[in-house]
Amino acid sequence: MRLLANNQQINNLSSEKIALSNSLGRITSENLIAKENSPIFPTASLDGYAIRFIDQKLNILNIFINDNPAGNQTRQVLPESFAIKTFTGSIMPIGSDTLIPIENVTVIDGKLKIDKQVSIGNGVRPIGELYKNGDVIIKKGTKISFTEIGVFASLNISFPKVTQKPRVAIFSTGSEILDLGEERETFSQIRSSNNHALEALIRESGAEPIQYGIIADEVDKLKIAINETINSGADFIVSTGGVSVGDYDLIAETLQKLNFETIFHGVKIKPGQHILVAKRNNQIFIALPGFALSAIITAIIYILPLIRNKLGLNFEPKIIQAILREKYYKKSRGKTEFTPCNLIFNGGKIELDFNGKRVGTSALLTNMLDSPHLLFSSENDGDREKNELMHIYILD
Amino acid sequence: MRLLANNQQINNLSSEKIALSNSLGRITSENLIAKENSPIFPTASLDGYAIRFIDQKLNILNIFINDNPAGNQTRQVLPESFAIKTFTGSIMPIGSDTLIPIENVTVIDGKLKIDKQVSIGNGVRPIGELYKNGDVIIKKGTKISFTEIGVFASLNISFPKVTQKPRVAIFSTGSEILDLGEERETFSQIRSSNNHALEALIRESGAEPIQYGIIADEVDKLKIAINETINSGADFIVSTGGVSVGDYDLIAETLQKLNFETIFHGVKIKPGQHILVAKRNNQIFIALPGFALSAIITAIIYILPLIRNKLGLNFEPKIIQAILREKYYKKSRGKTEFTPCNLIFNGGKIELDFNGKRVGTSALLTNMLDSPHLLFSSENDGDREKNELMHIYILD
Repeated sequence: MRLLANNQQINNLSSEKIALSNSLGRITSENLIAKENSPIFPTASLDGYAIRFIDQKLNILNIFINDNPAGNQTRQVLPESFAIKTFTGSIMPIGSDTLIPIENVTVIDGKLKIDKQVSIGNGVRPIGELYKNGDVIIKKGTKISFTEIGVFASLNISFPKVTQKPRVAIFSTGSEILDLGEERETFSQIRSSNNHALEALIRESGAEPIQYGIIADEVDKLKIAINETINSGADFIVSTGGVSVGDYDLIAETLQKLNFETIFHGVKIKPGQHILVAKRNNQIFIALPGFALSAIITAIIYILPLIRNKLGLNFEPKIIQAILREKYYKKSRGKTEFTPCNLIFNGGKIELDFNGKRVGTSALLTNMLDSPHLLFSSENDGDREKNELMHIYILD
Repeated sequence: MRLLANNQQINNLSSEKIALSNSLGRITSENLIAKENSPIFPTASLDGYAIRFIDQKLNILNIFINDNPAGNQTRQVLPESFAIKTFTGSIMPIGSDTLIPIENVTVIDGKLKIDKQVSIGNGVRPIGELYKNGDVIIKKGTKISFTEIGVFASLNISFPKVTQKPRVAIFSTGSEILDLGEERETFSQIRSSNNHALEALIRESGAEPIQYGIIADEVDKLKIAINETINSGADFIVSTGGVSVGDYDLIAETLQKLNFETIFHGVKIKPGQHILVAKRNNQIFIALPGFALSAIITAIIYILPLIRNKLGLNFEPKIIQAILREKYYKKSRGKTEFTPCNLIFNGGKIELDFNGKRVGTSALLTNMLDSPHLLFSSENDGDREKNELMHIYILD
C-alpha cells in the first residue's frame, strides 16, 4: 500500500478569513499568538474581601467604603488594615494580595471579623495564568471546535484565518446505475450510492465536494464529463466504477486520451485492488472501484490523506492497536486487507470484534454502518487468533 | 452528580424530512426497513463467464452469442454447455450458478477453454446478500454519516426522516463583559467567550443555538432578556454567570420573579458547583457558572444529555476506563471532579496524562483545547497513583 499524499508534491492551499460562527470544523492556517497576558492584572476568582495577607493576623479589619465590583473603571488602592469587598472577575485592588472568601468572614458593627484564615494568594488569579504575552495559544493546523471558538472570542477575533477547503469533483460511472430520484425502467438497474456516500465523506473530512452525478460508461461521454471536472478547477477528481479488467471499464482509456499521466493502476489491497490514480498539471484523478464498500474504503485510505495534506493537517493514517475478541480469518493472502470492525473499550483495554458485520463481497456497504473502523492486515499476514493484537485504522 | 435528563420528563421532538445532501449529522427518527432483497437477483461480482457449475467438467464450453453487460434489459437463459460473457454488476443468466473469472479462461477458435476451475457460486452475489426484505437496515436514533447517506441513496430515499433539532437559547451575563467586536472602554472589561463556545458546543451536538449575546447584571434587564428567550420557544435556555453567592449574582432572583421552579441550585462538582436548574412549563433553564472552564464542563455534563434525550439518542454519559500515566492530585475532596486530560492509545491499552494542561482556576478554558476528554473522580475518591485505572467521560 502506498500513501499517495507521501509521494505527491501537494501544495497547501492559501488561507481565507471566515466569520467565527461559521468556522466550526475549519482548520486554522496560522498560529494564534497572545498579544497580552491573561489576566492582565491579578483578578478575583471568587466573591470575598481583598486584603493584605499580613493583615490577617489583626483578625478585625476595617471595611473600605467602596465595593470593588467586576467591571469597575478604576483600580482602587487598599489602605493598610483595610479590606475591600471584591467580586468574582474584579481586578484586585493595588496593595492587596489575597482574597478572603465571603464564607470565611462576619461583618460586625461595620468591621470585618476573620473567622477562618487563608493562605497567601488565595482566590487570586495571577497575571498570565491563562496565557502570557507571546504564548502560542492555538497552533496552526488545529481543527476548530467549541473550545477554539471560545478562545477566539475571548481574544476578540471575529474572523479567524483558516485554510481554504480543497475542492473535490465526484462522479460515478456505469450504464446500469440510476441516480437518486430517477425512475427505474428495468429490473437490472441499481441505485448509485457511491457518489452520495463520497460527497458526504468528503464534506465530513473538511473539503468541498462538487457533485457531477452519474456518467454513462462510454468514452465520448466520459471525455466530456472529465473535461468538465477539469475545468471546475477541482484539486482532486474522484470517480467510481470503470477501472477493472472488463471490456466496459473505460476510465483508463479516457484518461489516456485526455493526457493524464498514470501514477499507479492497481494495488495489492482488498477491497479496492483496481484503484487507478493519474495526474495532469496540478490535478489528481483518483478512479475508485465501483463496489460500494471498495469505493468507500479506498476513499478513506487514499483520498482523506490527500485532503488532510491540502488542509495542512497531519495526514499520516491514524492507526491504533486493539485486541481480537474472536478469530480473524484473512480472506486474501498476499494483499493488505481492510475489514470493518467494532472497537470496544473494556477496562483500560481496547478490543475489537465483528459483531453484526456480514462476510461477503465488496458490495456490503452496510458493514460500514455505525462504526467505521478498519482492521488492517498486512500483505504477509494470515489468520489471527483471539487475544492477538491487531492494527486498526481509525477515522477522526 | 445528578443526570438531569434522567430526572426530567423530556418529550421527544417530532420529526421532519430533510434533503439527503443536508442530512449529514442529523438523527434518524424511524427505522429504515428494506422493502426488497438486495440484490434482487443473483448478481456477478466480477468480470467473467456465467456457467453452470457442473459444465466445468466439460473443460471446453460454447460461448453464447450475446454478452451480458451490467444494466441489460432482459435476463438471458443459459443453454447447457454454454457460457455467457458477464460483467461486474450484471444479473446472472437464468440457469447459471457460477461465474468463472476472465483470468481463468482462454478463448480458442470461438470456444471457451477453462484453465482453472472454481467452486460453485464463485463470483456470484446471492439474493439478499446486502439485506433481505424486512431487514432493519438503519436503526431509529442513528447519526447520519457518510455510510448512512450511501445506504439511503441506494434505496432511493431523497428525503430521510430525521428528528427536529432541539432549540437552545444562550446568553451570558455580567456588566464587566464585552461581546465579540465591541470596543474595550476600560482596562477591567473582559471578553465573553462563554456564549460563543456554548453556541459552538450546542451546534456540534446537533441542536440549534439561538444566540442572545451579553445581558447586563441587572434584574430588570435580565427579566426582559429571559422573557425574550422564553418567547423564542426554545426547549432549553442557557445562561452563564450570575449564579454564585455574591451580591451581583442575580439569575436566581430573576427566575423566581418569572415564576420558574428551581430544580436544583448547587451541586457537589468541581468545576461548576454553582449551577442552577429551573423549569417553567416545558422549558428548562440551565444557569451555568461564569468561569469559562466551569461553563463548558457543566454544559457538557448537563446540557448535552438533555439535547441527546430530545434527539432520541442514548443520553447516558459515555464513560470509559484508562490507565494513569502520572499521579493524579485531587483538588477538592468531597466533590465530583472533572479534569481535562489527554487519552493515549498504546498497544491495545488506553492511557491518560495531563501533558500541556495547566493547574489553576476554573478560568482555564485553554485546558479544553485539543482533546476534550474529562477525567472523572467521584466525591469520595482522593489522589490516585500512576498505573491506576480511572474513569474518563468522553465526548462523541
